[in-house]
Amino acid sequence: MALKLVIIGGGSSYTPEILEGIIQRQDTFPVNEIVLVDIEPGKDKLETIGNLGKRMIHQANANINLSWTLNRREALVNADFITTQIRVGGLQARSIDERIPLKHGFIGQETNGAGGIMKAFRTIPVLMEIAEDVQEICPDAWIVNFTNPAGIVTEALLNYSNHKKVIGVCNIPFNTQHSTAELLDVKPEEVLIEFIGLNHFIFGKKVLVSGKDRTEEVFDRLIHRETNYTPANIMPLDWSETFIQSTKLLPNPYHQYYFQTETVLEKDLQSYQENGTRAEVVQELEKSLFELYQQPNLKTKPKELEKRGGAFYSKVACSLMDSIYNNKNDVQTVNTQNNGTITDLPADAVIEVNCVITKDGPKPISIGKIPSPVKGIIQNMKAMEDLTIQAALSGNYQDAYNAFVMNPLIQDEKKAKVLLDELLEAHKAYLPQFKQ
Amino acid sequence: MALKLVIIGGGSSYTPEILEGIIQRQDTFPVNEIVLVDIEPGKDKLETIGNLGKRMIHQANANINLSWTLNRREALVNADFITTQIRVGGLQARSIDERIPLKHGFIGQETNGAGGIMKAFRTIPVLMEIAEDVQEICPDAWIVNFTNPAGIVTEALLNYSNHKKVIGVCNIPFNTQHSTAELLDVKPEEVLIEFIGLNHFIFGKKVLVSGKDRTEEVFDRLIHRETNYTPANIMPLDWSETFIQSTKLLPNPYHQYYFQTETVLEKDLQSYQENGTRAEVVQELEKSLFELYQQPNLKTKPKELEKRGGAFYSKVACSLMDSIYNNKNDVQTVNTQNNGTITDLPADAVIEVNCVITKDGPKPISIGKIPSPVKGIIQNMKAMEDLTIQAALSGNYQDAYNAFVMNPLIQDEKKAKVLLDELLEAHKAYLPQFKQ
Amino acid sequence: MALKLVIIGGGSSYTPEILEGIIQRQDTFPVNEIVLVDIEPGKDKLETIGNLGKRMIHQANANINLSWTLNRREALVNADFITTQIRVGGLQARSIDERIPLKHGFIGQETNGAGGIMKAFRTIPVLMEIAEDVQEICPDAWIVNFTNPAGIVTEALLNYSNHKKVIGVCNIPFNTQHSTAELLDVKPEEVLIEFIGLNHFIFGKKVLVSGKDRTEEVFDRLIHRETNYTPANIMPLDWSETFIQSTKLLPNPYHQYYFQTETVLEKDLQSYQENGTRAEVVQELEKSLFELYQQPNLKTKPKELEKRGGAFYSKVACSLMDSIYNNKNDVQTVNTQNNGTITDLPADAVIEVNCVITKDGPKPISIGKIPSPVKGIIQNMKAMEDLTIQAALSGNYQDAYNAFVMNPLIQDEKKAKVLLDELLEAHKAYLPQFKQ
Amino acid sequence: MALKLVIIGGGSSYTPEILEGIIQRQDTFPVNEIVLVDIEPGKDKLETIGNLGKRMIHQANANINLSWTLNRREALVNADFITTQIRVGGLQARSIDERIPLKHGFIGQETNGAGGIMKAFRTIPVLMEIAEDVQEICPDAWIVNFTNPAGIVTEALLNYSNHKKVIGVCNIPFNTQHSTAELLDVKPEEVLIEFIGLNHFIFGKKVLVSGKDRTEEVFDRLIHRETNYTPANIMPLDWSETFIQSTKLLPNPYHQYYFQTETVLEKDLQSYQENGTRAEVVQELEKSLFELYQQPNLKTKPKELEKRGGAFYSKVACSLMDSIYNNKNDVQTVNTQNNGTITDLPADAVIEVNCVITKDGPKPISIGKIPSPVKGIIQNMKAMEDLTIQAALSGNYQDAYNAFVMNPLIQDEKKAKVLLDELLEAHKAYLPQFKQ
Repeated sequence: MALKLVIIGGGSSYTPEILEGIIQRQDTFPVNEIVLVDIEPGKDKLETIGNLGKRMIHQANANINLSWTLNRREALVNADFITTQIRVGGLQARSIDERIPLKHGFIGQETNGAGGIMKAFRTIPVLMEIAEDVQEICPDAWIVNFTNPAGIVTEALLNYSNHKKVIGVCNIPFNTQHSTAELLDVKPEEVLIEFIGLNHFIFGKKVLVSGKDRTEEVFDRLIHRETNYTPANIMPLDWSETFIQSTKLLPNPYHQYYFQTETVLEKDLQSYQENGTRAEVVQELEKSLFELYQQPNLKTKPKELEKRGGAFYSKVACSLMDSIYNNKNDVQTVNTQNNGTITDLPADAVIEVNCVITKDGPKPISIGKIPSPVKGIIQNMKAMEDLTIQAALSGNYQDAYNAFVMNPLIQDEKKAKVLLDELLEAHKAYLPQFKQ
Repeated sequence: MALKLVIIGGGSSYTPEILEGIIQRQDTFPVNEIVLVDIEPGKDKLETIGNLGKRMIHQANANINLSWTLNRREALVNADFITTQIRVGGLQARSIDERIPLKHGFIGQETNGAGGIMKAFRTIPVLMEIAEDVQEICPDAWIVNFTNPAGIVTEALLNYSNHKKVIGVCNIPFNTQHSTAELLDVKPEEVLIEFIGLNHFIFGKKVLVSGKDRTEEVFDRLIHRETNYTPANIMPLDWSETFIQSTKLLPNPYHQYYFQTETVLEKDLQSYQENGTRAEVVQELEKSLFELYQQPNLKTKPKELEKRGGAFYSKVACSLMDSIYNNKNDVQTVNTQNNGTITDLPADAVIEVNCVITKDGPKPISIGKIPSPVKGIIQNMKAMEDLTIQAALSGNYQDAYNAFVMNPLIQDEKKAKVLLDELLEAHKAYLPQFKQ
Repeated sequence: MALKLVIIGGGSSYTPEILEGIIQRQDTFPVNEIVLVDIEPGKDKLETIGNLGKRMIHQANANINLSWTLNRREALVNADFITTQIRVGGLQARSIDERIPLKHGFIGQETNGAGGIMKAFRTIPVLMEIAEDVQEICPDAWIVNFTNPAGIVTEALLNYSNHKKVIGVCNIPFNTQHSTAELLDVKPEEVLIEFIGLNHFIFGKKVLVSGKDRTEEVFDRLIHRETNYTPANIMPLDWSETFIQSTKLLPNPYHQYYFQTETVLEKDLQSYQENGTRAEVVQELEKSLFELYQQPNLKTKPKELEKRGGAFYSKVACSLMDSIYNNKNDVQTVNTQNNGTITDLPADAVIEVNCVITKDGPKPISIGKIPSPVKGIIQNMKAMEDLTIQAALSGNYQDAYNAFVMNPLIQDEKKAKVLLDELLEAHKAYLPQFKQ
Repeated sequence: MALKLVIIGGGSSYTPEILEGIIQRQDTFPVNEIVLVDIEPGKDKLETIGNLGKRMIHQANANINLSWTLNRREALVNADFITTQIRVGGLQARSIDERIPLKHGFIGQETNGAGGIMKAFRTIPVLMEIAEDVQEICPDAWIVNFTNPAGIVTEALLNYSNHKKVIGVCNIPFNTQHSTAELLDVKPEEVLIEFIGLNHFIFGKKVLVSGKDRTEEVFDRLIHRETNYTPANIMPLDWSETFIQSTKLLPNPYHQYYFQTETVLEKDLQSYQENGTRAEVVQELEKSLFELYQQPNLKTKPKELEKRGGAFYSKVACSLMDSIYNNKNDVQTVNTQNNGTITDLPADAVIEVNCVITKDGPKPISIGKIPSPVKGIIQNMKAMEDLTIQAALSGNYQDAYNAFVMNPLIQDEKKAKVLLDELLEAHKAYLPQFKQ
């Protein structure tokens, strides 16, 4: 048995991580063909990554045929797995998503608030096209999406494309599991966290170590200390004892934007004045990464990549594909359709949830009710995500406004319009669906 | 047939309105006994109102026996209807609810945000006692509650007291119907608005005039002009064209707190600096009202009462009791149990909804789904209301914190604690359930 | 204002009743044009009814222009209301629906069991065509459907046609109200019964007389005595004291088929041997009715029509149209979409339910949970109805089999096939969608 | 680590199977203390089993301390696991449950129809007592219930007792998995069947072999041939091609009672006339089993036990306890609370469902909607089960009648009473809750 993997957005700086993952899994997950796909403006990066990939494969003595192309449809022929990690409009677009909200006194962030909505507007139409290509060309293949906002994008594909073999992944649950293991001084594979919620809005409800409930202990250790939960791209902040003890839930770093809004905003503004937007910081990082990637003697994934923020995204994706292929029936946390798993959310909502991973796809483990302290806000976020998807697909201005004004980070009926108008204008090259 | 009405909070400045309503309805709603009930600190006011009431009855030549007492349980014997409008802690407490949040940069308002939660904490235990008394002494009687926060209080009683004949009323739907009629130059009784939502968080979905849909016309007229929707106690503000046209819903004035937060906060702060809190303004108003009430030649409800803000509350209550007694089967908007009426809210949630009013109580007219633009925020509000009720009943600090931090007008994990602590301390005389 | 009514199935023996209803309502419901529509095989009957109608109108001195035609699409131009009462395949087809199940030892009935399913298979495609014509030609018109099985047909139209102004009516709720009034010796308009369930599977939960609960009294009187609840087309049977007292619900006569199956089957078999099928009895009845209708001196609806079984169907339809036109806001029991009204049934299920009748259509009054004794069986019936609709639309044999085998009156995996095969063959002229 | 197991109903003829299971699992599931508990009338059997157990342990050289007692509360001290398999009233009572319905022309069966309901009435109160003892004496212990009707009993305990660590097991899913493996000639552990439904009313929706969907193949092989699906206690019957192909589901043998009622009834009546009730057959079987058990040279579970009908029940129980203890995270099919797993059933319903088995209990894998062909009948069965539980707990005659009349195998309003009255009288010694 041989497998073909297509990496869409193959010119991404993250690609070496996923290549490393595939190489390491040769024995159990026998990928023997990889095609990197990207678009014209990413041609040079694609080539750099392609060449680095070839060196990595050679170095590892792996039996993998790696190629790269700008022709997506050709690449998809006979594919078994497709990973998607693209950035429509590039870091330039991200910079706009960060700068414009900040200018008006709002959180400017890649996947939350106005920025997250705009990213969805740019991304969903492109991924819909990809999904339709997959459905036509290689209908049995799984799409493993880690394009952000991963939950929203995955919901759009599952509910509105004809291709239903789509799974969204994120590194937050993985990171939470690993840092919890560190906190408790146990092995990550012994830790199972019962999560509840949505991508980037997920809470930990119960921490089981080899099946034993050690949640309270985690709470105790979490309070008042900086933990390693925080991904590189957002600032570490403390959670108050009261918040943890009252909600009885493990927050994730993205919750800062919602429950520590002012503090985060201040820090973000300061950081913006000092270093420009996060997008600009990343641009620098990327530049030096690609310089590194071009060095002919680099034959493995460089350590420097881990600083990039999305570390372990690809690890999560590889682990998922491995479990699907091998029908492992292990438990992983992915984005898939709710279908009753959380009784307080619509059946067709995409949630981030513990699933048994099988050859037949992810099977979510029932959760039931959302814990009352966060029930309303999770329902609110999901409803806002739904408005975002409607607008991304319709290109209707009023739909877009509704998503903006109902986002808990905006929620001002007049400023929502100001933000929206300015962002639609700034991004118009990447928003053909919004004609007006 | 003769009826007995007990007015709890009978010393309220609003009482003349309800007395007027009863007097006007003598022919169809034959109340022949009214007992005003209040507590020791309201004794003088109670007497003033009692004497004014007697003059009003005499002037109208009505056959009603009016008395007043501090003994609630005695008053309840043989009662058919009980209205409840009380203010635990008086306007002094309201002033605290307004002042402390404002001090910390938050909306300080009687029924929304931190103030609304605190009012619920003070009020619910007292109304639970009243409901239990009613259940014991006059179990067939209806409680018509217009004590604020009316939706939250009604939900607490319906879900946690043993007395189930409880209906909550508010003047907002009535005012909206009347000002819409004015806007369209038709008679109020021709206007039926399909409402959806919660007390003080209700939207108009459809405006029917004699059954014909004229919603769009109302939207057109509403945009950019000051309407008479606004109750006296909150400031009139414009709604943007975009908001109305995108949500396709009629907001009510309380929505300002959520969608125009900053603007309202600024105005409130300015007004606070100039005139003190709204509570203090009302205190002055009340003082002059009671001076008026004491004038022996005043024999009818004075015009001045309408400025007070709660105008028509009592009219709504009288109209409701009349329809119950006469099994009128007309449609009125009241607070009652959801029970499937709105499919996106829990069955036991109390909603503000159009009902057919019968001798057997209010029968809600099915609504189905919440319109998508406001689905999430209404779910969020309802969840927060539920947290508020849990805390009001348990007296548990963490429950109270959860209600605070999840309130869309607070939502800061650290400041929520500051606000809560300061408010619990300031109100401790009226919060026996919070022991710590 | 003048109104146009189109009566599809105008050649039906029931039409004089509806004509009478329209004539009597001239003052409040000003229909001035009526077109009777029928198909070629019903041409003679259509003419007979048309001429009788003209005599009735002349006799009443009513200002109504009555005509008849075989051209449905022409008739629909400018229509305001359309009533539909058709019988695809005529009484001949009904006879088959009764005979074949009886032959195999099953209930053979027009709207229940195998017969009811087959009638739905023949009827739904024709009514779908009518609904699409209405949507194209007179999209603002209301369809008032009393073609049986009325609940199933109405659900098919509301969920699968493009015309959404469709209401189903039945005389059972009307009859129940009237016979309950008789039982209690009060006026029918004083009686309001809270119904729960589906067309021909509706239960009375509460009997209110001028708003006062007299349910227990009705139970007491109902037990052990033959009541007038029973429509002419099904046999009166006693309900045991235990059944009434345990379910605490008012059954309707159709419930006999389910809870007294064997007794009914025996009686039906005996009656079949003595008089042939009910269809054949009706054929005789119809013949003599039409002889009567042809008599030139007959100028009003003859008394004899009431024996026919469907008495009051047309009265119910007229009353409904009157309330819509006049935005009466009165309560009537009709078939419309559930939409949360009954929380234990799907949102898109059509239920038979008390509604406030407005110009904007029927607005169901919330019910909540189905009483536990009949929850399962009502859910089961609704699921079977849904299978029936799927099969009627798909023409798929397996879908049809599923409806048969899951019908509580069949439920034998082998005999279901025998029945289905024989009925499909016998009716094939009227089942073009079933090709095999 | 050492574990204590208490076997309630230890004198059962099945006990050697569970003892064998424990002995075989010594390495991974280190039970070192077993107490067999039974009641006075079962004293002799208990001793026979106890002595056989001692010989089995000695033979296997296992380190297990086995004892037996009539004092349940003493036995429970320090228990880790409790299995419950009791038969209130013994086989005598079962004989009544079979004979009386048969006499009146109804299915008389241990867990279905009138017999199943009566068994629940006798059993639930006793198991409620056991659960309360466990909660008091060893609150951390898991109860593994295989007392029939296992689904109904488990629901009663989970919803109405204070002990929540209760899991119900049945051998049907295990047998189905094993016979499917045989049918496909693969290993049982490679087969995963997606089940949907209730205990003894479970359907197979999808057959995955190492994650590959082979459902259609199973259907093909299943049609028209006698399979080994059938447990020893019920007769093997064919399923028609049409039934399998239309429902697209794997039925289980108990479905015969519902979809082949007449055929089963005939065979049962014939068998009754020839051999007496199944209970009487089993009584003979038991007698000879116990004669065998008494032979001092019998030192292992005898082959003859497998004919007894409940084969593999204990295997299933041991496997479950092993996975809990070792936090295996494997998938097993057990009876647990629905909680959204099946969206068409109530949250608190107990369903039979694939679960991930952990130290923290069983975690159901989400299912979503019930396939439409069996949606109604499963809802109906669950509603009837709920009525049964209500009656078992209340001892209310009308509740009991409702369960009877709504059971799809009874459903005759008059005969339901006859059956109920006769059964209540016959079993009155074991139904103290029914006083009348």
